[in-house]
Amino acid sequence: MSRFGNIRKILPALEEMLGDRLSVAQSIREHHGTSVTHLAPAPPEAVAFAISTEEVSRIVKLCHDADVPVMAFGTGTSLEGHFLAIEGGLCIDLTGMDSIVSIHADDLDVTVEAGVTREELNHALRDLGLFFPIDPGANASLGGMTATRASGTNAVRYGTMRDNILALTAVMADGQIIRTSSRAKKSAAGYDLNGLLTGSEGTLGIITEITLKLYGIPDAMSAAVCHFDSLESAVKTVVETIQHGIPVARIELVDSLQMSLINKYSKLDYTAKPTLFLEFHGSELSVREQAETVGEIAAGHGGSNFQWATKTEDRSKLWKARHEAFYSVKTNYPGKDYWATDVCVPISRLTECILETYQDIERTGVVAPLVGHVGDGNFHLTLVFDEKDPEDLKKVEAFNDRLVERALRLEGTSTGEHGVGIGKKKFMIREHGPALDYMRAVKHALDPKNILNPGKIFDWEAEK
Amino acid sequence: MSRFGNIRKILPALEEMLGDRLSVAQSIREHHGTSVTHLAPAPPEAVAFAISTEEVSRIVKLCHDADVPVMAFGTGTSLEGHFLAIEGGLCIDLTGMDSIVSIHADDLDVTVEAGVTREELNHALRDLGLFFPIDPGANASLGGMTATRASGTNAVRYGTMRDNILALTAVMADGQIIRTSSRAKKSAAGYDLNGLLTGSEGTLGIITEITLKLYGIPDAMSAAVCHFDSLESAVKTVVETIQHGIPVARIELVDSLQMSLINKYSKLDYTAKPTLFLEFHGSELSVREQAETVGEIAAGHGGSNFQWATKTEDRSKLWKARHEAFYSVKTNYPGKDYWATDVCVPISRLTECILETYQDIERTGVVAPLVGHVGDGNFHLTLVFDEKDPEDLKKVEAFNDRLVERALRLEGTSTGEHGVGIGKKKFMIREHGPALDYMRAVKHALDPKNILNPGKIFDWEAEK
Repeated sequence: MSRFGNIRKILPALEEMLGDRLSVAQSIREHHGTSVTHLAPAPPEAVAFAISTEEVSRIVKLCHDADVPVMAFGTGTSLEGHFLAIEGGLCIDLTGMDSIVSIHADDLDVTVEAGVTREELNHALRDLGLFFPIDPGANASLGGMTATRASGTNAVRYGTMRDNILALTAVMADGQIIRTSSRAKKSAAGYDLNGLLTGSEGTLGIITEITLKLYGIPDAMSAAVCHFDSLESAVKTVVETIQHGIPVARIELVDSLQMSLINKYSKLDYTAKPTLFLEFHGSELSVREQAETVGEIAAGHGGSNFQWATKTEDRSKLWKARHEAFYSVKTNYPGKDYWATDVCVPISRLTECILETYQDIERTGVVAPLVGHVGDGNFHLTLVFDEKDPEDLKKVEAFNDRLVERALRLEGTSTGEHGVGIGKKKFMIREHGPALDYMRAVKHALDPKNILNPGKIFDWEAEK
Repeated sequence: MSRFGNIRKILPALEEMLGDRLSVAQSIREHHGTSVTHLAPAPPEAVAFAISTEEVSRIVKLCHDADVPVMAFGTGTSLEGHFLAIEGGLCIDLTGMDSIVSIHADDLDVTVEAGVTREELNHALRDLGLFFPIDPGANASLGGMTATRASGTNAVRYGTMRDNILALTAVMADGQIIRTSSRAKKSAAGYDLNGLLTGSEGTLGIITEITLKLYGIPDAMSAAVCHFDSLESAVKTVVETIQHGIPVARIELVDSLQMSLINKYSKLDYTAKPTLFLEFHGSELSVREQAETVGEIAAGHGGSNFQWATKTEDRSKLWKARHEAFYSVKTNYPGKDYWATDVCVPISRLTECILETYQDIERTGVVAPLVGHVGDGNFHLTLVFDEKDPEDLKKVEAFNDRLVERALRLEGTSTGEHGVGIGKKKFMIREHGPALDYMRAVKHALDPKNILNPGKIFDWEAEK
């Protein structure tokens, strides 16, 4: 039975609680129900701008009692329609929860509210000589990054959100506030609720505070760019670097097409060839050692000399260019639609996976610039298409189906870091097999009324 | 209602399936129902020696249908009574599942059956130049280490079991076999079942295969011992080392009493003072850099010169002595009972936690040699007592209660790595608050008949 309209019963109570922090204005609702990718908009019926965990708890309790779906919202930069209100209901916008609650520099941890973005956090940490490494393409909120188990260019060295969370505060489906763990660096006390909530995409609880691990800014950091004549040579350089156990901080692949778009968008003049963006962290000595070793590996595959960026502003410029890859595509193909793929495979299967995918691009003529966190075996294509052309949509959809099928065959996953949302639901049965039934059982147990971000990751009922 | 005796209904079917790999012999049952610590023995009603995941699945299905509790068993070295058959039932001994299924050296991963021990694995990896770092005191099975979220001396650099598992095969309560993930280095595809099963102590599923991350054996490894005049100086050296972000591979604290016991047991002649055991991994250069920096920090706190062990056999001897700490206590106090504590606190609270605990030792006269993975904020006391003396038992129990209370007050946990089992159940409400209700909800959802290792971590029914 549809739950659209149920919210009417609680709007007066919500208004009383939130005043002008509750909105039913169409523009606000549309902003909170429109994805940056090709997925169809699905605005919530109202938007609540919450300012505290206790307030989120009270809001969720009202929604729970009235059977109203609840979606959490951060910066709206997710790529799989995570926040779309496909069953209606209330969007809780957490951007007002933007306090850094406490920094424990001695323990290398920080507690933030969910609305703090990664750049805001790093700005606050800089004078302490600390940083938080996880960097998805967007300047996303840390709540959203936790909910989607985000990673980025530094994950090859520092891990993903999963590896960098000490504890969470979350509001559960019944409105109860829980704290999942302590600030201790490790614990064997019961089930890992940190892990369970991280990547649960708002379907098991609404994350309102996160205690994150921090890192000292390394004594030395150097970034470099290296061009190759073929994609295969670039990928093989990555594979060898990882297999040698060199602790590169970043090792990113960009293909020729994407390089030319980056050059255009960011007004740069890199050679438009398959390129690796690299970064090394450590002591002066260790950075030099790492760079020399990787330089030798690259040269063995015909790589160019490294173009170095050691000054902070040069490094920032280099990584800004890399981070703007998605926007460079959007700008170059105005009026088009975009589909961001996200497969991840074991590093030993990466060359095979990328080369087969390239053959598919050549065969089908799909426009698909490539960037990748290839040190993790993870790469993205931005499929450019025209949604109004049903043939074109069908073509990219089939392309993505083949890509995911290829990654799963090569012992990988359909999503390294973007999450499932709506976009990848259909792959979950193939990817998880019977394990999906136990995920569903957990959802049923923790959210028996299915009010938390319903219809995401998997359907409420198992397919027959 | 008691479930003792239910097993009789399925013994004929089990016998038919397993032949002489099913035992009801008293000695076998006692071996599988006796903890190495003070907890009272609780033998299972029968023991099945399984040899494959499919067989475990068939056994669990039988138990599920007949409402028979099932406990998994590896090396029996757990410290909190994890495998005790407190509600009767069947023990599944997994030591026969001792195959290394596949080594992917290029991907730095390995898949093992649950019965493989950590030393067996490292033996098999040595010639490939690879190793698996997690090292609890005992030569435990990797299944048991996964189920209890074990760690050890290397965790300060390499993380715990939680951080080193790519995927699991598990048999769920209904006998269904699941695979939790792929061999990809990261994934954002749905709930983190790896994390949920790791540390669930056999209460959510029986882990039969594990895909683990591996590491290249570093170019250079050096171990050293450093003595201090006071425990406080030793702890402060650790805290400063960690806060400087030095990537020590191991940094272990041993107090004077434990040093004298180690000397006696392992026939060594270390100075019986508060001591740090250290190890550095990396390139020659980086190891030298790390050692110099830590040497300076230690000297600033009055530490002795480092006594170095660089040759493999000397390093092995040094760490063997450290690993035998628990056995050195057992040998020195024959006929006594032992209670191993396991609190873990943020590093900034470690000095306070250890010094307050030492005051408690002085005040109460409890015999309590100390070792600790202090780089993680985790330390152990082996409380020596006489179980037949009710006053003595009461004394150490009250001591441990105060210790846990202290750790929780200092934002830590009751257990850094030993797990909860039976021994720490009573602390879970204090430690987790309402979060415990959601752990229980997960248990009820995944094991609705409560057959998997019942009565561990928390009770089936919430306390009123």
